[in-house]
Amino acid sequence: MEKRISGHTGLMALFGTPVGHSGSPAMYNFSFQHDGLDYAYMAFDVNVEQMPKVFEAIRLLNMRGGNFTMPCKNVAAELVDKLSPAAEIIGACNVFVNDGGVITGHVTDGVGFVKNLEVNGVSVKGKKTVILGAGGAATAIQVQLALDGAEEVKIFNPKDDFFVRAEGTKAKLAKRCPECSVTVEDLDDKEKLAEAVNSCDIVINATIMGMEPYDDVSLIDKSLYRKDLVVADTVYSPEKTKMILEAEEAGCKAVGGKGMLEQQGAVNYELFVGKKMPLKEYQRFQEENK
Amino acid sequence: MEKRISGHTGLMALFGTPVGHSGSPAMYNFSFQHDGLDYAYMAFDVNVEQMPKVFEAIRLLNMRGGNFTMPCKNVAAELVDKLSPAAEIIGACNVFVNDGGVITGHVTDGVGFVKNLEVNGVSVKGKKTVILGAGGAATAIQVQLALDGAEEVKIFNPKDDFFVRAEGTKAKLAKRCPECSVTVEDLDDKEKLAEAVNSCDIVINATIMGMEPYDDVSLIDKSLYRKDLVVADTVYSPEKTKMILEAEEAGCKAVGGKGMLEQQGAVNYELFVGKKMPLKEYQRFQEENK
Repeated sequence: MEKRISGHTGLMALFGTPVGHSGSPAMYNFSFQHDGLDYAYMAFDVNVEQMPKVFEAIRLLNMRGGNFTMPCKNVAAELVDKLSPAAEIIGACNVFVNDGGVITGHVTDGVGFVKNLEVNGVSVKGKKTVILGAGGAATAIQVQLALDGAEEVKIFNPKDDFFVRAEGTKAKLAKRCPECSVTVEDLDDKEKLAEAVNSCDIVINATIMGMEPYDDVSLIDKSLYRKDLVVADTVYSPEKTKMILEAEEAGCKAVGGKGMLEQQGAVNYELFVGKKMPLKEYQRFQEENK
Repeated sequence: MEKRISGHTGLMALFGTPVGHSGSPAMYNFSFQHDGLDYAYMAFDVNVEQMPKVFEAIRLLNMRGGNFTMPCKNVAAELVDKLSPAAEIIGACNVFVNDGGVITGHVTDGVGFVKNLEVNGVSVKGKKTVILGAGGAATAIQVQLALDGAEEVKIFNPKDDFFVRAEGTKAKLAKRCPECSVTVEDLDDKEKLAEAVNSCDIVINATIMGMEPYDDVSLIDKSLYRKDLVVADTVYSPEKTKMILEAEEAGCKAVGGKGMLEQQGAVNYELFVGKKMPLKEYQRFQEENK
């Protein structure tokens, strides 16, 4: 029975929309309880326009830390007091840490994604990559791929506002990682996309396609899958998206978004409380409670 | 291990200062879990000046309900969208309920206090009462005593801003409950206080004296206690205040603030979720976990 939350318990929170499906509350609350830390982690559905009020609430309720998710990561970077170096390049943050009223924004999507590929036996060094999307997580992954030595980062995005951002990322990476070839193409150009997938090592979905209510959508035609292709998704709910299921069927190495979330969660946890997250214990707990 | 808070869990909260000692989170969280309701209840330390931001946070985070405690109950009544009839008389609220963005303020301190006296075998009907304090809880109790048929309500308060409020309460009750004699006196007039205690049936502390850091303070000289006097405290932390301990020693019927909180909690719970609170189960749980 409930004994954990008292009048002293501190709140941490995830902000964005949608957030109801998020696995973060379960993961962090397990870890806080496991480590005997007096925090509770909740999720709040907010939109971009509400973000200035979110920052007032963070200060008012004295939240130690938390996360921002789509579509709030970019505006968050404008509202924090300080940005980590990576968050400054990317212009987005998915993590905040509140040190006595000074709020620092960090970006850990990219680190978590690359860490998760490594855990699955895939190094990005020297690899040709195709990445779909140019939102917050997508941009963080693009930057991290370049920083970690990928040979090519081919970004595909519809010709919307994010397309412009992707071109900005390309320009920034041309300066900071000149040895990495970065291109930006129209996601609707199916021929170019097929060519790019055919000649790459790793294809990554960093859009919301595959997540409900788009769970019957995969942006990559399954005829393009081949056994030596790595197919990675950032969507983690459902745990196996249509893309991941089709890639597995075709015999590709398929890496779902859940592990990325976990690796990223471990990085975040350390930022929040200065401790290694009990990830193995959490995974065991999840297995036992399936 | 933690399984209760998910991305869908709704937040309810207590606002005021100090709140860290509050038993409300434990009580409501137990009850939510017992009843299978997907809410978490936390406490946030805020001052009067922060209350407009508190209301923004309530709306932003879509809190279903919660509580206000000292010193925020009066300003809360100015910030809600609607007031219950009792809250309107008193000009304070200790409970809010958020119905799809319309926030109603209720006051339940008085009801909880009188219910708790009843549970302890004390009726207020026809009784002479002395009550110390004129803050939010004190005012609510004064109004409830008059509404429930007390013969006399003698209010004692220092000559501060609250003294003026007590005179306002007296004026309002003269209209609404003309059969009840209400007086307001200076708490520093020790002689008048002693006289009043000597001739009353029930003496009530509704100040913060007795609570840390004032836990070595009792405003009633223990020489005034006699066996047929009922001594009631609204302070519930420590569970037995100096006043209650001295009253017990003198053989009075002594009623601590904890039961008031519980009875009030049950009233609040019903406002929040439309269900009877599992109070007996909670008391049993507390006994087992002492």
